[in-house]
Amino acid sequence: MPTQTQYGLMSPEELAAEHDRQKANYAQLKTEKLTLDLTRGKPSPEQLDLSAGLLSLPGPDDFRAADGTDCRNYGGLTGIAEIRTIFGELLGIPASNLLAANNASLEVMHDNIVYSLFFGNADSERPWVAEPVRKFLCPAPGYDRHFAITESFGFEMLTIPMRHDGPDVHAIEELVATDPAIKGLWAVPTYSNPTGAVYSEEVVRALVSMPTAAPDFRLYWDNAYAVHPLVEEVAPAIDVLGLAAAAGHANRPLVFASTSKITFAGSGVSFFGASDANLKWYQQHSGKQSIGPDKLNQLRHARFFGDADGVRAHMAKHREILAPKFALVREILDDRLGASKVASWTEPKGGYFISLDVLDGTATRTVALAKEAGIALTPAGSAFPYGKDPDDRNIRLAPSFPSLDQLAKAMDGVATCVLVAAAEKLLNT
Amino acid sequence: MPTQTQYGLMSPEELAAEHDRQKANYAQLKTEKLTLDLTRGKPSPEQLDLSAGLLSLPGPDDFRAADGTDCRNYGGLTGIAEIRTIFGELLGIPASNLLAANNASLEVMHDNIVYSLFFGNADSERPWVAEPVRKFLCPAPGYDRHFAITESFGFEMLTIPMRHDGPDVHAIEELVATDPAIKGLWAVPTYSNPTGAVYSEEVVRALVSMPTAAPDFRLYWDNAYAVHPLVEEVAPAIDVLGLAAAAGHANRPLVFASTSKITFAGSGVSFFGASDANLKWYQQHSGKQSIGPDKLNQLRHARFFGDADGVRAHMAKHREILAPKFALVREILDDRLGASKVASWTEPKGGYFISLDVLDGTATRTVALAKEAGIALTPAGSAFPYGKDPDDRNIRLAPSFPSLDQLAKAMDGVATCVLVAAAEKLLNT
Repeated sequence: MPTQTQYGLMSPEELAAEHDRQKANYAQLKTEKLTLDLTRGKPSPEQLDLSAGLLSLPGPDDFRAADGTDCRNYGGLTGIAEIRTIFGELLGIPASNLLAANNASLEVMHDNIVYSLFFGNADSERPWVAEPVRKFLCPAPGYDRHFAITESFGFEMLTIPMRHDGPDVHAIEELVATDPAIKGLWAVPTYSNPTGAVYSEEVVRALVSMPTAAPDFRLYWDNAYAVHPLVEEVAPAIDVLGLAAAAGHANRPLVFASTSKITFAGSGVSFFGASDANLKWYQQHSGKQSIGPDKLNQLRHARFFGDADGVRAHMAKHREILAPKFALVREILDDRLGASKVASWTEPKGGYFISLDVLDGTATRTVALAKEAGIALTPAGSAFPYGKDPDDRNIRLAPSFPSLDQLAKAMDGVATCVLVAAAEKLLNT
Repeated sequence: MPTQTQYGLMSPEELAAEHDRQKANYAQLKTEKLTLDLTRGKPSPEQLDLSAGLLSLPGPDDFRAADGTDCRNYGGLTGIAEIRTIFGELLGIPASNLLAANNASLEVMHDNIVYSLFFGNADSERPWVAEPVRKFLCPAPGYDRHFAITESFGFEMLTIPMRHDGPDVHAIEELVATDPAIKGLWAVPTYSNPTGAVYSEEVVRALVSMPTAAPDFRLYWDNAYAVHPLVEEVAPAIDVLGLAAAAGHANRPLVFASTSKITFAGSGVSFFGASDANLKWYQQHSGKQSIGPDKLNQLRHARFFGDADGVRAHMAKHREILAPKFALVREILDDRLGASKVASWTEPKGGYFISLDVLDGTATRTVALAKEAGIALTPAGSAFPYGKDPDDRNIRLAPSFPSLDQLAKAMDGVATCVLVAAAEKLLNT
């Protein structure tokens, strides 16, 4: 037993002995020939089973929306009223300002970018593609699929530090005030991916109020986890559209959400909330792309939930499955990594991820070690623009999919990899 | 009774008397206060009822594709194998070269254009948006939603005359041979919208073989009505991908199809068939836009049909509903307009439309008269690029949605409007 457990304070001899111990643990780990996956925020089969009722809905002869619309036929760019009403209540958005769409909110975000590039948005002086340079603000750690969209369309992505209550607002205010090339900000305001941060009302007020050099600046407000608490109390729905309108910037927020992590991840309903002007602009272009979304799937969801309370009750069941998994991860991290002081991690009150920071310069090595031992982790750096974590420190953990037993094995393995990589690093410095 | 029934041969007095007769008919028509709609190719409720089984599918505990995929969860850009196999057989495309997507093939076409604009396609020297001018060939009469996409993205659209066996290939060959700005052609090869033309194998061979100045020229091959005959025999599926590959232009055709007019128009499955290189290119970009299509809806459709013969049997039921409607339209047009020689119309063997050519310069007036009498027709010119029919002659009729009784009323009314407009025009010339 070392007298010292904090790696940074160990003597070289203690550290070498600790390295040997962890290498032995790692050798043992590899003999287990695991194939475990913590890469993506996928619901587990048990969570998907909660929505089994959807598989037979809407059911025989049920295809009419309340307003008489035959959901089987063409038409209706807005989606059906009943599902917009349910999710409008949950998101704090009037149903008239909320569209219901197909299965992927990512697609709605992507298409907002595409329309803005080719046509400019409702406040643009010219199409974004006609700008000599275009930039986007990326709070990081953040969501890799967001950053992939702006990267693919050639935006220069500016990293904004993430805090526990949202992104660094002062850094943002300074940038947007003078640079008209900055066209938007990616945001996951509730139980952020991957840190679990919940934007405070103060942060939201600052974001909707700040002066921007670009008249067509937009907040891409991906409220993917709005109703996904891991604790009793859900984070309050901040009325970003109302606050923005009151601040004189009604068109600034574009709100996205979906049932991907409520019902079926591949077969849910997505939502798009925005000002009247934005929705009119959006439909003018989406109406060229499609005759309308899958209304039957929307009806299926409306029948399944009944009302907003139906969604809340459903989410409580998800929480019963998810909360023990997050607790287990925390317990193992505390137990295996607490004393070493080579890592820290978030303790989210909702959402799908835990953000793990390891010793600077060891995230890539940790992920490689894990991979060699059969534990798939999201590539190091994924949560940063261009996939590059300047400190090579951040690893996103997704505990939802594996069973508790698999998760315990995987996390214990990850902890070993973190310690091996840290000891290696410290011995070589 | 006039001794002459052919308008062009009537004396001024005969024509004036005929005009009075048709105006009286029109006055009578208006007293009926109709509200009938022949604008869009929408399936009727009776047709939608044929797919009632889908409303309860896939059913309890049924969510696994044959390869074990949990269709409820994320992932799978290609769509599930079983539905690709069924429609691959029907379209004459190997399942490995056919993707299954969400509910709208229009979206897949739109997104192919978007990706080409921004990134160039697999054979482009530069993104299309970087070209000083970009042009697209539009066989007309054609599909208004196709033309709306290329119009919105600023393509110069060149009208190509439509023949009974496809577009005028010689006109096309001459244009594409020398102009590298021409990037593509819109095509509905089987039971074309709106004329019902079926592309001959000779035309298809010419289109896939012709030299094009643009290396990245594409055939946007919208095979929307591939399995939608109105007669016993379905038009043969011409292997456009195979012919193109044999001609050394494997990447030229992009094939689109959907079940919109097979099952539920708003909630079907769409398909995209192309070369390996094109599919790889497409998924590279679509993977940024979405995590994958609604696989449960694909499974639902696979369960409903069973196999390709299931689709064929299903389409026979559609034909039983549709064929009498098309026969009725033809009968009324023959009866009311045959002798006058002021109009001609197509007699399609499949698809959803009849293309009606009225006396030059009277289509707009005819549609306006019909509207005033409560009969909604697609705006005159819709089937032409920019919505402008140079001869103001063409009207697209969509007989599928109304009941036989409503259709008879509507078509009799349309015939009256055609005759009033023609007599007016001839009296004023």
